[in-house]
Amino acid sequence: MTMPFASLSEFRSILSRLPAPDAGALAAAGARNGQLTKPPGALGRLEDLAIWVAGWQGVEKPRCDRPQVVIFAGNHGVVAQGVSAFPAEVTVQMVANFTHGGAAINQLSRAFGAEMAVHALELDRPTVDFTTGPAMREDEVVAALAVGWNAVDPSADLLVTGEMGIGNTTAAAALAAALFGGDAGSWVGRGTGVDDAGLQRKADAVARGLALHGGVLGDPLEVLRCLGGRELAAMAGAIARARVERVPVVLDGFICTASAAVLEKAVPGALDHCVAGHVSAEGGHARLLAALGKTPLLNLGLRLGEGSGAALALGVVKGAVACLSGMATFAEAGVSGG
Amino acid sequence: MTMPFASLSEFRSILSRLPAPDAGALAAAGARNGQLTKPPGALGRLEDLAIWVAGWQGVEKPRCDRPQVVIFAGNHGVVAQGVSAFPAEVTVQMVANFTHGGAAINQLSRAFGAEMAVHALELDRPTVDFTTGPAMREDEVVAALAVGWNAVDPSADLLVTGEMGIGNTTAAAALAAALFGGDAGSWVGRGTGVDDAGLQRKADAVARGLALHGGVLGDPLEVLRCLGGRELAAMAGAIARARVERVPVVLDGFICTASAAVLEKAVPGALDHCVAGHVSAEGGHARLLAALGKTPLLNLGLRLGEGSGAALALGVVKGAVACLSGMATFAEAGVSGG
Repeated sequence: MTMPFASLSEFRSILSRLPAPDAGALAAAGARNGQLTKPPGALGRLEDLAIWVAGWQGVEKPRCDRPQVVIFAGNHGVVAQGVSAFPAEVTVQMVANFTHGGAAINQLSRAFGAEMAVHALELDRPTVDFTTGPAMREDEVVAALAVGWNAVDPSADLLVTGEMGIGNTTAAAALAAALFGGDAGSWVGRGTGVDDAGLQRKADAVARGLALHGGVLGDPLEVLRCLGGRELAAMAGAIARARVERVPVVLDGFICTASAAVLEKAVPGALDHCVAGHVSAEGGHARLLAALGKTPLLNLGLRLGEGSGAALALGVVKGAVACLSGMATFAEAGVSGG
Repeated sequence: MTMPFASLSEFRSILSRLPAPDAGALAAAGARNGQLTKPPGALGRLEDLAIWVAGWQGVEKPRCDRPQVVIFAGNHGVVAQGVSAFPAEVTVQMVANFTHGGAAINQLSRAFGAEMAVHALELDRPTVDFTTGPAMREDEVVAALAVGWNAVDPSADLLVTGEMGIGNTTAAAALAAALFGGDAGSWVGRGTGVDDAGLQRKADAVARGLALHGGVLGDPLEVLRCLGGRELAAMAGAIARARVERVPVVLDGFICTASAAVLEKAVPGALDHCVAGHVSAEGGHARLLAALGKTPLLNLGLRLGEGSGAALALGVVKGAVACLSGMATFAEAGVSGG
């Protein structure tokens, strides 16, 4: 594996020089949108969405023919605190399910023509329980960021990052609380379906993690190292790489968004190439999106992870770019303007 | 053309004996959903949606491989009242645009693999201005219902009905006000983009139409005849046929929903085979959906008509049925349950 960066400091340096969207493509796509055979604004949010894709793709007529879905899996020491309704071995079992094509994300990827890949990150070596120490050493978090970075296909039209990791809603809640403040209990949710006692154990674990790692709360990448997990770091690495390659990203649910938020807190604007695919039913997701200024495309009560909500939102993106790129103009169609 | 019914009375008789979904398929799909490799309920609304499709399709594993999009176009005498921002000739111009593949609905149909057909209903013979008389004679509304009825492909997986007709948001507002009561002004919206004066003219026209046809307000099919239009009647006919054939329907925006509402007011439950694809930005749509007890799948500010919002929602339906029909069960995948 090529190592695009050897330290958090080098990764931080990449984040300090992220590219902007193509201004010429934005202008051309906006002008084209205004000439299409429809009343102005009649396609609602699809219009801005398609123009936004055009800007990142650097073309007047954007496409969503070759989206990429990348799933990262990791295991979490914090499961020792009784924070999940499922046993930790489900992570490796679900990776096998992804590989064999049996999971929800397989069906959604196929439905929307996305190429899907799965990266399992050292599942037999869980992160350290963050209530007892930093989840990862620097070399570990850098390696996980690099797995994500290298997983991105720069020729993809769009990127969806998904995850699997028993215990990872607890890690995501810890990230969100560390990055945005607020009571630990206000960021935790039921994840795969914990009962009230499990929810209390999650809140307790997050509170203890925040207390233990209070010294790093001002540094988003250190927050990721101490409270995150390998699949969360890999998603952040993939989303950063997509930005460098100007590939637009559709964000998934709470865990994906918490991982992405590390980048935004490190460099404001780092998520300008990301749209929120959906708002999940998991506790803190709506609040996290609001903090990031992202309005979700879908609100259908999903809370599965795997990238499933974002993959479903690919349908909306496909529809939006199909209209902008394929519709006739008033002049081409000989239709009278309003 | 075969005539499935020769009068409104015969059409009414068909509505009195509509089929129910397949109880065995509903039970089998529900049981299957409970065994899939995901936490219970984690796919949110997709789960109920897919089971609902299974019930109407009469299978355990539903499909959305061959959806049908049917567009009906009509012209409206009420445009004489200055209710639209576009001239009436745009209806025939847009039909040509549909035929040549240049409209939004062409792109969306292609994006979701739908077969699309367009039916222009006597565009050179607009309905009567409903502020001066009944929009249609009985033979005319029956013929329009029959065009819709005959347009449905019984072998389609799903049906989307769309429309084009300068002036038809005014007809739809008149239908909604006649069927559900309330002030005329509260049901009109800006349609293709009328200004404040145009909006006032729409409200006035609807109010005069309601006053003129006050005697028929208790009979939904007579409301359709006196205040509707040919493309609205055709959509109602198509939606009724879909029910008889047990083809589930995705409803589009305000005009489609107002047309469908005629059936529901004629026979409560007549729209049980319909899901609301989206809620549009057009004034009364959210209120109309609430009155029908329908929760939209999408809320993206569309207000174009043509079936565009419903076609976009086909993506959600495709995702939902792909998960129910394609996912592995816990037993098949060797994944530990919660």
